Amino acid sequence: MALQNDLLIRTAQGQKGERTPVWVMRQAGRILPQYLAIRNSLKDFKELVKTPHLAAEVTIQPVDILGTDAAIIFSDILVVPEAMDLPYDMIEKKGPSFPKTIQSPDDIKLLNTNDIADRLAYVTEAIAITKRQLAGRVPIIGFAGAPLTIFTYMIEGQGSKTFSKARSFLFRYPEASHLLLQKITEVTIIYLKLQVQAGANLVQLFDSWAGTYNPLHYSEFGMRYNAQIVTAIREVPTTIFAKGAFFALQELGQSQASVIGLDWHTTPAFVRQNGCADKVLQGNMDPCALYGSFKDIQKATRLMLEGFGSQAHIANLGHGVYPDTSADKVKCFIDSVKEFQLSASAH
Amino acid sequence: MALQNDLLIRTAQGQKGERTPVWVMRQAGRILPQYLAIRNSLKDFKELVKTPHLAAEVTIQPVDILGTDAAIIFSDILVVPEAMDLPYDMIEKKGPSFPKTIQSPDDIKLLNTNDIADRLAYVTEAIAITKRQLAGRVPIIGFAGAPLTIFTYMIEGQGSKTFSKARSFLFRYPEASHLLLQKITEVTIIYLKLQVQAGANLVQLFDSWAGTYNPLHYSEFGMRYNAQIVTAIREVPTTIFAKGAFFALQELGQSQASVIGLDWHTTPAFVRQNGCADKVLQGNMDPCALYGSFKDIQKATRLMLEGFGSQAHIANLGHGVYPDTSADKVKCFIDSVKEFQLSASAH
Repeated sequence: MALQNDLLIRTAQGQKGERTPVWVMRQAGRILPQYLAIRNSLKDFKELVKTPHLAAEVTIQPVDILGTDAAIIFSDILVVPEAMDLPYDMIEKKGPSFPKTIQSPDDIKLLNTNDIADRLAYVTEAIAITKRQLAGRVPIIGFAGAPLTIFTYMIEGQGSKTFSKARSFLFRYPEASHLLLQKITEVTIIYLKLQVQAGANLVQLFDSWAGTYNPLHYSEFGMRYNAQIVTAIREVPTTIFAKGAFFALQELGQSQASVIGLDWHTTPAFVRQNGCADKVLQGNMDPCALYGSFKDIQKATRLMLEGFGSQAHIANLGHGVYPDTSADKVKCFIDSVKEFQLSASAH
Repeated sequence: MALQNDLLIRTAQGQKGERTPVWVMRQAGRILPQYLAIRNSLKDFKELVKTPHLAAEVTIQPVDILGTDAAIIFSDILVVPEAMDLPYDMIEKKGPSFPKTIQSPDDIKLLNTNDIADRLAYVTEAIAITKRQLAGRVPIIGFAGAPLTIFTYMIEGQGSKTFSKARSFLFRYPEASHLLLQKITEVTIIYLKLQVQAGANLVQLFDSWAGTYNPLHYSEFGMRYNAQIVTAIREVPTTIFAKGAFFALQELGQSQASVIGLDWHTTPAFVRQNGCADKVLQGNMDPCALYGSFKDIQKATRLMLEGFGSQAHIANLGHGVYPDTSADKVKCFIDSVKEFQLSASAH
């Protein structure tokens, strides 16, 4: 089925579109009352992730309500460690927690790498349902955690101020770290290809904890595996969002990724000067700008768009939208991107 | 009294020394059994901070035990908000917590800015005692939190994953934010000058949460006040350690600070190319390297020193040493800095 709005895909492929496409990380979920109504009728977050027709429903909500140029499948990056036999709990107001973690190189042997299609069928089924229901209105974004971020969770078992367990694992067990990262990478490639087969039009790697590592480690243990993945996925455009990894811009620029996602700490000028001159960029308004007035949001959005210029840019926030943000403010951001473009082209 | 070992001060002033000086952020405290013996004999952390002769004792311990080229006064950056009438609790294994915080612009009026010398006399007295007891063996480093970091604590009241309260305060109340930051800055200048009068030979600003802000905000609300402080303190060399603020390297380079402290996410090459070509740099080994073997630590230390080259560098970790680090490993780092320099000069 041909896409009616393929602006995001064309932009990701480096073509000039009629305006800047826009979507918002974490747009499916928490900020929408319509999401909360479904979520609160269920036992927990994971039940929603594992119920394909409901996951599809909340995936489509922001397209209808906010007018985004893409749907991103409602899921979690931690479905991958779970498929590898490290299940997670999602604890309200605290975040994920793993009852079992990787404590030593020996633990790596116990991880599963088989039956990924079966184990993650609930995700691919949700994508297939979304595809049918969207009927080509906008593209679907699939995603996975980047290997080093999944590795971090597998070792830490939860969030951390310093992530010193995961970071010291790299210092203490470099060979075992590579073994574990390679396993995660292979599972991730299988998983992303399944998402593409099910209907994802673009896939994004979330390297949420990239910024916790030192530059040498991130090159050796992070980018090496991100590069394997974006090289393996040639069917659709790919995005790498490596939060905090300003030190890896050179390698990100040289990677096969179609799009580089930026957090709110960088400026387009800095990124273009430091190794990503020719890349399509995604981002990067400070999510806290959405706590301002409607007028402040319009101003901040315009400032962001002017910074990127009108080409090779997919508008987004620099991080997932915060849970206590008003949906009206998010809509104001999305509308502002669309309107600013219209007025710019009217000159 | 003349300093017997003034290597750190000469290096901070841009002179070439006979080797690279070395100290470690958080060297006074947690990692030393001799510290824990004193700490455990008291009610809590704050009792130690507020008992000058004991604060002086633990300040000197790492000079004796680890052989550092400086003593840094044992204290906490949160003594400043406390002196301004926002007291903090230090909760074991959790960190600081403020019972009362700044929730709206009106709350700022209630802050105290008077009697700073009296209210923080316990710190200056601890410095004076340290000075007498050290008798010039090594210089004393005084310190304070940078205004934006203190502002962050005053609003958040504790650590946070996103610091979205403090960040959105800047978006919502820019004028009130400036008012609050100016108050903190004035108190901080008074406080640092008192430390210098008491005997501090260099003062460091810890901007621990710099990296949570966007570049525009950090320039307007962070660096503006850091610049006021380092311009006001001309009696001794000054250091700014703005953790995560890679986006501010240009402004840091142009500031009056004598030394720029680096976290473990940057490389000396990156920093020199991005605005700090001529600054003395301090840092920046990944603190997790100290979880490796002695051989690994020697290797990582050598790699760091080679990266910086032999001049305009004060060796340190890229963050405070983690509490579960073995003191022997810290000593190995310090010895490695000293030894590597000796062998380099023997060539």
